[in-house]
Amino acid sequence: MLKEMLENVRKNIPLVHNITNYVTVNDCANILLACGGSPIMADDIDDAVDITAICGGLNINIGTLNNLIIPAILAAGKKANELSHPVVLDPVGAGASKLRTETAKKLLNDVKFSVIKGNISEIKTLALGNGTTKGVDADIADAVTDETLPEVLKFAKSFAKSTGAVIAITGAIDIITDGNKAAAIKNGVPMMSKITGTGCMLSALTVAYVVANSNNVFDAVVAAVCSMGLCGEIAYKRMNINDGNSSFRNYLIDAMYNLDGDTLEEGAKYEMC
Amino acid sequence: MLKEMLENVRKNIPLVHNITNYVTVNDCANILLACGGSPIMADDIDDAVDITAICGGLNINIGTLNNLIIPAILAAGKKANELSHPVVLDPVGAGASKLRTETAKKLLNDVKFSVIKGNISEIKTLALGNGTTKGVDADIADAVTDETLPEVLKFAKSFAKSTGAVIAITGAIDIITDGNKAAAIKNGVPMMSKITGTGCMLSALTVAYVVANSNNVFDAVVAAVCSMGLCGEIAYKRMNINDGNSSFRNYLIDAMYNLDGDTLEEGAKYEMC
Amino acid sequence: MLKEMLENVRKNIPLVHNITNYVTVNDCANILLACGGSPIMADDIDDAVDITAICGGLNINIGTLNNLIIPAILAAGKKANELSHPVVLDPVGAGASKLRTETAKKLLNDVKFSVIKGNISEIKTLALGNGTTKGVDADIADAVTDETLPEVLKFAKSFAKSTGAVIAITGAIDIITDGNKAAAIKNGVPMMSKITGTGCMLSALTVAYVVANSNNVFDAVVAAVCSMGLCGEIAYKRMNINDGNSSFRNYLIDAMYNLDGDTLEEGAKYEMC
Repeated sequence: MLKEMLENVRKNIPLVHNITNYVTVNDCANILLACGGSPIMADDIDDAVDITAICGGLNINIGTLNNLIIPAILAAGKKANELSHPVVLDPVGAGASKLRTETAKKLLNDVKFSVIKGNISEIKTLALGNGTTKGVDADIADAVTDETLPEVLKFAKSFAKSTGAVIAITGAIDIITDGNKAAAIKNGVPMMSKITGTGCMLSALTVAYVVANSNNVFDAVVAAVCSMGLCGEIAYKRMNINDGNSSFRNYLIDAMYNLDGDTLEEGAKYEMC
Repeated sequence: MLKEMLENVRKNIPLVHNITNYVTVNDCANILLACGGSPIMADDIDDAVDITAICGGLNINIGTLNNLIIPAILAAGKKANELSHPVVLDPVGAGASKLRTETAKKLLNDVKFSVIKGNISEIKTLALGNGTTKGVDADIADAVTDETLPEVLKFAKSFAKSTGAVIAITGAIDIITDGNKAAAIKNGVPMMSKITGTGCMLSALTVAYVVANSNNVFDAVVAAVCSMGLCGEIAYKRMNINDGNSSFRNYLIDAMYNLDGDTLEEGAKYEMC
Repeated sequence: MLKEMLENVRKNIPLVHNITNYVTVNDCANILLACGGSPIMADDIDDAVDITAICGGLNINIGTLNNLIIPAILAAGKKANELSHPVVLDPVGAGASKLRTETAKKLLNDVKFSVIKGNISEIKTLALGNGTTKGVDADIADAVTDETLPEVLKFAKSFAKSTGAVIAITGAIDIITDGNKAAAIKNGVPMMSKITGTGCMLSALTVAYVVANSNNVFDAVVAAVCSMGLCGEIAYKRMNINDGNSSFRNYLIDAMYNLDGDTLEEGAKYEMC
């Protein structure tokens, strides 16, 4: 199943419009190229709608949100909805500032998302208004463990139902649910938190997978999350004694470039739950 | 000839002002340093003109165009013209949105460019108003092949004459013309389209070459395009089995850093046409 | 002493708010993660103050300054002052444009800085109004040598006293002073000027060191500057024949990731002066 999903990305070369932060935007572009997609960025209100219209899907990431791009995000989101293009929301730092929290909530209200992907603190902020975000990382008090998994799962399903989106909560264990089906994914390595941009790259990647597998959003998200985590594992194994986080970033993107369907199928560690 | 051009860049250390997109800006800075130049970025209307004045040349790239920087681009372009500094235009995504197309056309009207560099779809959009841009990549319908070369050449020469700029149309075959002389360049590898920023880096590089060889803009552009393509070839040969596009990007910039005049002279594949 | 400083960074995981330029922002994020800190970026007036409040320190870098973020910089700086969080100023390109020079001066007036870090031309511009900045690099006429060291030292001490900040003047020889104590640091390699962002990364790093060693700002800055220079040396030694500036950048960040206290203690080349 996952194999086919990856191959569909490589076959369809989805063009992905990214309104994202300027910290990790280059990595987002390169991971999209690595997975077989094609990136474009446009965040001016007079540019974004036109670009959304020629793309297959839209990636919205509020990592360096500013007031100028908010109208562009809203307009692009509505245009994508109008065209039935998938839209993915990555509410980076929701809970850390009023602007981010309120903008994310406004987006939830005005735009229909195919997927909402964040760490547990960000998703809690959106769903409950009480995530204790520590900057752009999840608060440790919120960490998803085998013990808290059932509770988090219940919460995620409920949020998926209320939003109509597939919810992806990322962490040591990733949880994906469409409100009915749910998967727990155990791919990935802690080293992934030692580079900036793994979360942002995953969001961009998710759009590519969903565009290329639009009849099956839930599975597409599972495939995207597994492939990102697996590439983290491959990259980590490739590290030598002198390598650090910068080389790891290169190896991670390289791994996505070289990933094939069989490797993904064999390496994916997910179970329905 | 090309050897001398490269050596002039390394000798003169041209300071290049870049008003460019935030996706590939870091790569542009590093390729400028790699070739022997020096980068500076400034895109506020109150900053750009001063910075243009202390630089040797100006690189204008509309890859993440927004309304705030358009006045800065125009003012910087006019200042560079006033000082007779070379200005290079990279109309990224012209044809993909109204804002990009109209801004590029306004720029053509208000600023005198030394070089206009784009893929065939972007250049067609500027010259004819009918490029079928697919995002930031050229549309396949527009591809330059050995068969279509004479026709494209004629079109490029005519656009060079009407703008007074050297026109560089990049693709599998690159075409450079000043309206009279023309060269076809066959350096480069398909892998260059698997990273973001090769086009943007080439534009930045072109400014450095033109500043350091200002008495011979046509040859300087040929040298810049050959050196970029050749570095792509060198980088590709350096790839091992686990490498992907991220390592390729590093190798490409590394290759530019290590490129010497003899290697460029021997490796350049261009012919006058 | 330096060993402890580094270990405090790794132990405390300082969260650093960066209002910085979009050229090198990704490298700043990754060097912060490499040293044991955690980065966040926010530059909108409605976002920056909230983010400053949850962070341990603030990094202000005017490398791609624009009028929109100036109020955010001022507000974040004042908030950090209010909370007694350290603030580091990197006046990139002060002297190169009126906007940069005047903004840097306004910042000096309105915000209390723990550290001001720049090349000699930038610092002279702030202190005397007559640095001869060549873009973002120091003018050669300003270079700090063994001969000019006593004079530069006197100047730096006086500026430290008048601002109440630790002054760090970077170059082949780095000078750090709090107005009384002063250190000259000889770590580093010329290759560090062949990549974009070494200065910006150092500023971000300095915030992390100062936050984690807030009772001893002078020593923290010495440790940060030594560690950056030492990582440059380690990275340079790691280069092979085909490597250039892009690989060097990766190796530099990797070296910071792997740096331990003993290596820093042994490799640091500083003397009190």
